[in-house]
Amino acid sequence: MALTLLSASKHFAGTLSKYSHVSTTTHCTMVFNVFLPKTAVEDKVKVPVLYCLGGLTSTEDNFAQKAGAAQHAANYEIALVFPDTSPRNVDFNAGADESIGYSAGFYLNATQAPWDKNWKMYDYVSKELPQVISENLPIDISRSSITGHSMGGHGALSIFLKNQHAYKSVSAFAPILHLSKSNWGKYALPQYLGNDESTWKQYDVLELLQKHVAENSFRKDVKVLIDQGTGDQFLTNNLHTDALVKLTKEMGLESQFDIRYHDGYDHGYFFISTFTKDHIDHHGKILRGL
Amino acid sequence: MALTLLSASKHFAGTLSKYSHVSTTTHCTMVFNVFLPKTAVEDKVKVPVLYCLGGLTSTEDNFAQKAGAAQHAANYEIALVFPDTSPRNVDFNAGADESIGYSAGFYLNATQAPWDKNWKMYDYVSKELPQVISENLPIDISRSSITGHSMGGHGALSIFLKNQHAYKSVSAFAPILHLSKSNWGKYALPQYLGNDESTWKQYDVLELLQKHVAENSFRKDVKVLIDQGTGDQFLTNNLHTDALVKLTKEMGLESQFDIRYHDGYDHGYFFISTFTKDHIDHHGKILRGL
Repeated sequence: MALTLLSASKHFAGTLSKYSHVSTTTHCTMVFNVFLPKTAVEDKVKVPVLYCLGGLTSTEDNFAQKAGAAQHAANYEIALVFPDTSPRNVDFNAGADESIGYSAGFYLNATQAPWDKNWKMYDYVSKELPQVISENLPIDISRSSITGHSMGGHGALSIFLKNQHAYKSVSAFAPILHLSKSNWGKYALPQYLGNDESTWKQYDVLELLQKHVAENSFRKDVKVLIDQGTGDQFLTNNLHTDALVKLTKEMGLESQFDIRYHDGYDHGYFFISTFTKDHIDHHGKILRGL
Repeated sequence: MALTLLSASKHFAGTLSKYSHVSTTTHCTMVFNVFLPKTAVEDKVKVPVLYCLGGLTSTEDNFAQKAGAAQHAANYEIALVFPDTSPRNVDFNAGADESIGYSAGFYLNATQAPWDKNWKMYDYVSKELPQVISENLPIDISRSSITGHSMGGHGALSIFLKNQHAYKSVSAFAPILHLSKSNWGKYALPQYLGNDESTWKQYDVLELLQKHVAENSFRKDVKVLIDQGTGDQFLTNNLHTDALVKLTKEMGLESQFDIRYHDGYDHGYFFISTFTKDHIDHHGKILRGL
């Protein structure tokens, strides 16, 4: 699985690079950005990694360009990987709609045509991409953490819950917490997964959390950081933050969830960038054992 | 001169807002972004302002979204104003070329048709925009500073040199320093200003500096901060940083120019954002008398 370097820019004494590779999971060429801190670039020291997953309408660029994460990652000497949010350039028209197709991978494995060949973003982000970066870059994937925004917050939390021992820590900005009940999910999930709603639960953060608590398999040594603006236009119909707050109380998990509401902040990168430092601190300390 | 609010997002406890207004200078609707720190938003305290001028192909958004300036401006409680880089939606086709027309205002007053009606970015940025923000926003324009990137670095330095007592401080990222000799200038200036090259000197940083030194009118209490990457593809044919270094030595101005070359950095926002804090420190300390 060779990488093709598309661009590289020096950034906070490290390098922000864009790579492409042919994915055996999504059967198309995938692109991602990666920030490597100075010690990885100059001394080839293997560093820990934080995956940063983007939201609907995003590509691999939005989080990399607008969140202001690299300045803090440089301090902790950790890598940042920014995957694309869906397959691209497939052999059917997948770009007509904001909630399905391009930029709308939802970090799941589609089972329904025409999506089932390429839309395997769950496997891509949780399995193939770690292998690709481990084989090609100075990154130690035994020290991995994951975060994301909106659809990417859903991705970070659901991928973490399904692979709790693959990640040291998890956080999210304005995540979709109950995908099967969100307007976006109710539109996309039947097309990706079919009408049997029981199949939707495997990609629903609240459902996954309840399942793991019921099975006594939710890690007790993890603290989940979630930031949410109260001025977010998607709060009521797509994110369901209050439902997670309620659930953590009912399940006695308040001490493991730091869910912070921020007065007046909206859903965009001016909100995210305001709290990026806190998230990199959260992950950096755990990844570096500080 | 009333402002129309197009959008507003909470950002580092302040607000990043986009406004439009009908400009009497450019005879079209102009748009700008402004970051106001918390004290200006909540307490209506008038704050100092730093103008941040964008480069070719930019709009009012690039610097506001990618430079990471607001986090530092919030610390100093200063406003940031991000103007657009040209008129828009004029009644002729001005959008066909990357080096002239839309996004290519060059912060000058055009004298040649068809540009002479609208392309008055020098007057817009140095005269009308300060009036507009002073009348409509909690900004004290008696405490103004100016910075910019590439074409906007040229804008910051040339506007400063032509109005040295209107700004407390000046800096630039990868500025065009000798516009009349740059490839971009040699293409655009004949169309904006005509073929008489003597008219070009009024918008050429090196020419303006030499003129002020010859006339003993260059402020002795100002220190100019310039950051430049050595991996910048435009260094040789468009920016002419070495010529400024040479000139400051010849004129004995080394102590007033802090021209920093940074090994391997290119021309983009991954370079700019790396050094943004230093520029906001430079301006913030002077604007706040620290």
